[in-house]
Amino acid sequence: MGDDCALLRPDAGLELALTTDMLVEGRHFFPGAEARALGHKALAVNLSDLAAMGAAPRWAMLSLALPAADEAWLAAFSQGFFALAERHGVDLVGGDTTRARLLTISVTAIGEVPCGLALTRAGARAGDEVWVSGELGGAALALVHPEIADAARRLHLPEPRVELGERLRGLAHSAIDVSDGLAGDLQHILARSGVGAVVRYPEVPRPAAFQQLANAQLEQDCVLSGGDDYELLFTAPVERRADLERLSRELRIALTRIGGITGGDPRLTVLDHNGEPLAFRGGFDHFAA
Amino acid sequence: MGDDCALLRPDAGLELALTTDMLVEGRHFFPGAEARALGHKALAVNLSDLAAMGAAPRWAMLSLALPAADEAWLAAFSQGFFALAERHGVDLVGGDTTRARLLTISVTAIGEVPCGLALTRAGARAGDEVWVSGELGGAALALVHPEIADAARRLHLPEPRVELGERLRGLAHSAIDVSDGLAGDLQHILARSGVGAVVRYPEVPRPAAFQQLANAQLEQDCVLSGGDDYELLFTAPVERRADLERLSRELRIALTRIGGITGGDPRLTVLDHNGEPLAFRGGFDHFAA
Repeated sequence: MGDDCALLRPDAGLELALTTDMLVEGRHFFPGAEARALGHKALAVNLSDLAAMGAAPRWAMLSLALPAADEAWLAAFSQGFFALAERHGVDLVGGDTTRARLLTISVTAIGEVPCGLALTRAGARAGDEVWVSGELGGAALALVHPEIADAARRLHLPEPRVELGERLRGLAHSAIDVSDGLAGDLQHILARSGVGAVVRYPEVPRPAAFQQLANAQLEQDCVLSGGDDYELLFTAPVERRADLERLSRELRIALTRIGGITGGDPRLTVLDHNGEPLAFRGGFDHFAA
Repeated sequence: MGDDCALLRPDAGLELALTTDMLVEGRHFFPGAEARALGHKALAVNLSDLAAMGAAPRWAMLSLALPAADEAWLAAFSQGFFALAERHGVDLVGGDTTRARLLTISVTAIGEVPCGLALTRAGARAGDEVWVSGELGGAALALVHPEIADAARRLHLPEPRVELGERLRGLAHSAIDVSDGLAGDLQHILARSGVGAVVRYPEVPRPAAFQQLANAQLEQDCVLSGGDDYELLFTAPVERRADLERLSRELRIALTRIGGITGGDPRLTVLDHNGEPLAFRGGFDHFAA
């Protein structure tokens, strides 16, 4: 800090993983969103990208365009950002603050991963099982039912699966974080790996709140196509099942098998309670609607 | 590209220099600004930060928030961005595109510099001479007189001093790029180095256009306090004068001695034609006005 650039000295034998995300008022969050949660989420979505590659987070840069130099807002935003950064040993090494009519947050995060061990979207193989961490659909549910506290927490304070990502190195064949929805993100893996997949919809873990709501279509849209959950979706060979179950217990993070990778076309098939194919909506498109 | 992160393998024995800049419509450029020039400038300001540290540019990430998915605009923007990137061997390794009411561009650039050889703002010493590359004040002049083509070119298509920055390693004691104006940026060096400086205003190189305008106050504001010129301002010991003059001829970039570093308070004194102290305006403050 204090110079034109930050200087980093990466450890020898490591690759750097780099990711950047921009959050814009009115697009990624509502005007008036809570500053502390925004600070947390702006970093969390980037740490989630690092986790999806199996990289250990090290550094971050933060650029802010603010409607006004509001010190209380900045203090709360910083609290959220730095609490998460400290928890994962991330140093803020640079950034930029400017004034603009629209609140815009851009974060770049940098992590390290041993050479050749990064998880990618391209490694899924026929015979792999498809796994997901935690629960899916909660963040999307909060957009419709903001009064459900657990769901709102998933949307506003997502917990990036940093340690899980690192521990999946050598266990998983491929991985991605669920930012655009299960269907859309799994299709990214299929396209890059050149394989197909079958997912058993009833086995996809989801928040208990859906039971009370008893709205089957909303539930399906949230669980299969809702974004912003920031869980890890990954594939691993059957022989790793016991290792993954052990890892789940050790980290106290639910890891659930929801389907399998098939050969052939890079097509996703989702099966319903009767084993029949289910029509589903694709992932979130920033330029749609 | 195509995964959650970019993976970089830095060369051994090198440090990474990291910088990020956000450009916002209505703040850093006018609505309707030419897309090709914006693409150039968004990368140029970041390469200029790398140059100020003596780092060789390698990689960049680009995040865009766009009012609409306008293909012609994107094509022109990309043309400007990639033409400059190619010229300096910069690979675009990641980014993010989203929709927003206000055009916002965020670029992160990464360069390499041999360990311990990065130029900083903290190395100026009493007895150093103060140097600047090219001419100052042109970009600020273009805000008042957009019809002056040379000045407009300085504002919209600044040329980052990439090669000069790398060649200053081992020659300069300190360096910064002139983004906020000569006075403001030199004061950053003084504050970080704990030294003072005297600058001889008549010797600061400036575009010939100022002569015809014959507006002494405008000229002084532009030359001393105008931002956005992206020249390099640096200090070097007297013994390096001949080396720097040779380098200037080799690179065909004017390098001009405009003053000297003194001991004592980190204060900047600017002298006029008669050797009398001159009152000047400070650097650009994004939250002022």
